[in-house]
Amino acid sequence: MSLIVQKFGGSSVANADRIKNVASRVARYYEEGHSLVVVVSALGDTTDELVDLSGQITKNPSRREMDMLLSTGEQISVALLAMALHELKCGAISFTGAQVGIRTDSSFTKARIVDISTDRIRKELKANKVVIVAGFQGTSSDHEITTLGRGGSDLTAVALAKALDADACEIYTDVEGIYTTDPRLVKDARKIARISYEEMLELASSGAQVMQSRSIEVAGKFDIPIHVRSSFSLNQGTWIVKEDKSMEDVLIRGVSLSKNEAKLTLSGVPNRPGVAAKIFKTLADAGINVDMIIQNIGKSTDTDISFTVPRSDAESAVQALKKIAHETGFKGISQDPNIAKVSVVGIGMRSHTGVAAAMFEILAKHKINIEMISTSEIKISCVVKKKDAEKAVKALHDGFKLSGKK
Amino acid sequence: MSLIVQKFGGSSVANADRIKNVASRVARYYEEGHSLVVVVSALGDTTDELVDLSGQITKNPSRREMDMLLSTGEQISVALLAMALHELKCGAISFTGAQVGIRTDSSFTKARIVDISTDRIRKELKANKVVIVAGFQGTSSDHEITTLGRGGSDLTAVALAKALDADACEIYTDVEGIYTTDPRLVKDARKIARISYEEMLELASSGAQVMQSRSIEVAGKFDIPIHVRSSFSLNQGTWIVKEDKSMEDVLIRGVSLSKNEAKLTLSGVPNRPGVAAKIFKTLADAGINVDMIIQNIGKSTDTDISFTVPRSDAESAVQALKKIAHETGFKGISQDPNIAKVSVVGIGMRSHTGVAAAMFEILAKHKINIEMISTSEIKISCVVKKKDAEKAVKALHDGFKLSGKK
Repeated sequence: MSLIVQKFGGSSVANADRIKNVASRVARYYEEGHSLVVVVSALGDTTDELVDLSGQITKNPSRREMDMLLSTGEQISVALLAMALHELKCGAISFTGAQVGIRTDSSFTKARIVDISTDRIRKELKANKVVIVAGFQGTSSDHEITTLGRGGSDLTAVALAKALDADACEIYTDVEGIYTTDPRLVKDARKIARISYEEMLELASSGAQVMQSRSIEVAGKFDIPIHVRSSFSLNQGTWIVKEDKSMEDVLIRGVSLSKNEAKLTLSGVPNRPGVAAKIFKTLADAGINVDMIIQNIGKSTDTDISFTVPRSDAESAVQALKKIAHETGFKGISQDPNIAKVSVVGIGMRSHTGVAAAMFEILAKHKINIEMISTSEIKISCVVKKKDAEKAVKALHDGFKLSGKK
Repeated sequence: MSLIVQKFGGSSVANADRIKNVASRVARYYEEGHSLVVVVSALGDTTDELVDLSGQITKNPSRREMDMLLSTGEQISVALLAMALHELKCGAISFTGAQVGIRTDSSFTKARIVDISTDRIRKELKANKVVIVAGFQGTSSDHEITTLGRGGSDLTAVALAKALDADACEIYTDVEGIYTTDPRLVKDARKIARISYEEMLELASSGAQVMQSRSIEVAGKFDIPIHVRSSFSLNQGTWIVKEDKSMEDVLIRGVSLSKNEAKLTLSGVPNRPGVAAKIFKTLADAGINVDMIIQNIGKSTDTDISFTVPRSDAESAVQALKKIAHETGFKGISQDPNIAKVSVVGIGMRSHTGVAAAMFEILAKHKINIEMISTSEIKISCVVKKKDAEKAVKALHDGFKLSGKK
């Protein structure tokens, strides 16, 4: 029988009934004789409620205390799931990240796992118990409680699968798997049976929200197959695996959409060396991630520079840049939140030419203007007006023949 | 400057505003230069909400998982209080019971503290920080999370005061201190300035709910002065201290009322040796505390035995006894939940005679029938009909001249 790590997200354990539902599923595997390590997130909105509570007290909470606060969410879930399993006469024991030996560095709110000591888990598995582990959290070498950042429970699951040399790592969610695009936008979006780590990573970082990027990276690094599937059905979901030859036959694996970016434009930027460097170093120092950049070389003395940043960082980017306006000599700064980024992803691009041209042609045919473009080896992204975003996704999904009807 | 342990109960930290209020008070002491260790309970109804959540999953939760679940309540409080103190520019750091080295045995839901390692606390105090400790919880030698039972945060505070050799231990609550009786029942109840550990213990165990009994016992054992006071005012509250000579001048320190008991009566109990022993051993084995017992020796062949138990245990007591009905030969069993216990407490009783007589006379004068009586060296308790309970308390408070008008 195999050792399986299963991870259930917040929506899968949103209330007592859903926790019982998860328990039934886990118990079914247990009865089949599998060894199970179950990672759970906080109940539904618990994390948001705790964040809200802290917001009533301070706008600028200490990151250490934030971890102390937020880690309670998962602790509640594991205890309740253990009770639900006991109710089904299924041996089970719950653990916090600290108890189970998930060691991290001391970067509160975004700690990195440095080591997992599996002694306690193995002991309980040997005693025929389902081991339930609080996701998202760990403990530093000086016994501080840390958390792994948004989506950190995925990382807990993948890291445990690696540490325990598990046979499978299942990520349970409220959708049936990874789709060729968001099924809420495109009705005939198709569930993907197998996707490579690299493709999944590009989809996740360009808007698909099914799994945390870092956990995909780690799974890829250690070649841990991930099965993303629904906690409400027994259907096969999507396997995230190492790429193989056959995967290259598919040109485009999926289309993603991100509406969480804003475009900033600096006008009248002096055309001399060091100015662009100064601008982007300022943003980096402020901890702001810049995604796409374009520069119009039109006039001889100055130019315009546009770039995108996460929408939540747009205002601080403007503030940071205003401080160096004098020094760098740019004339104006404007922001446009009404943009969206559509991306097509597929490892088939590596061996096929003309994908970018095809993409631009599809968008042109639908009269959608492209404001910015960026490409990687297996991804092409275009910034368009937000009002055109969904039309663009549909057009690309259709144009690249990704629909279920084939 | 002194080292003070302060404990704030759930009503003192019921929401963000109250947490800020507690922070202001703590910051005031901090600015005066005191070293502060602050123990907090779970926010208002958090514990009840968690118990309710577990109740939706199982009627019979594992005690280990219950501790895993409930200990999150205090963890939330400590993090929020630390944030509130930071907001006031007051250095502060929060800890769980496990982090701060509160070692207990492994009796989940009612663990006993076996040791407190104060290294981490002293280090943070030296760094000029307010140390905030989650009340009610600890950790067993095998890293399990344990809780100390209802009111356990009081015990955390007293035990920390002892371990740190603190100059004072302040228990903050939503009333101004200990009163001669419940001020909600008797308007002219008077705040007691000083009360002995022993008197407080008798009051607490006979219905006064201001402080957990076990924590008073521990404070008494190690002679730790406790100051019970309001978190909403700066008034002096009540000091619980070692008894001194002058305290004996007061005959009755206070009057308490408990409505949480039920009277069980076994009729036709055979009048032969070993029967009563069997009955009360059966109850003890079922974990049921018997308080008062009376036996009517009326007939030669059999007798009636009445006793009181916590109302929540009445039904299980009846079930346990029914199982030995045949063996012991008693004929009937009945329960009466409509009783109440009124008690008068005072170390002055030791050196004064006639207190019991005075009590019975006062109750008789008000036509209140006494159903059962029990006495200790410094306490006399009477069981009366529940409908007479408040009248009895008023009569005794008045009759023993405890009112504020003196």
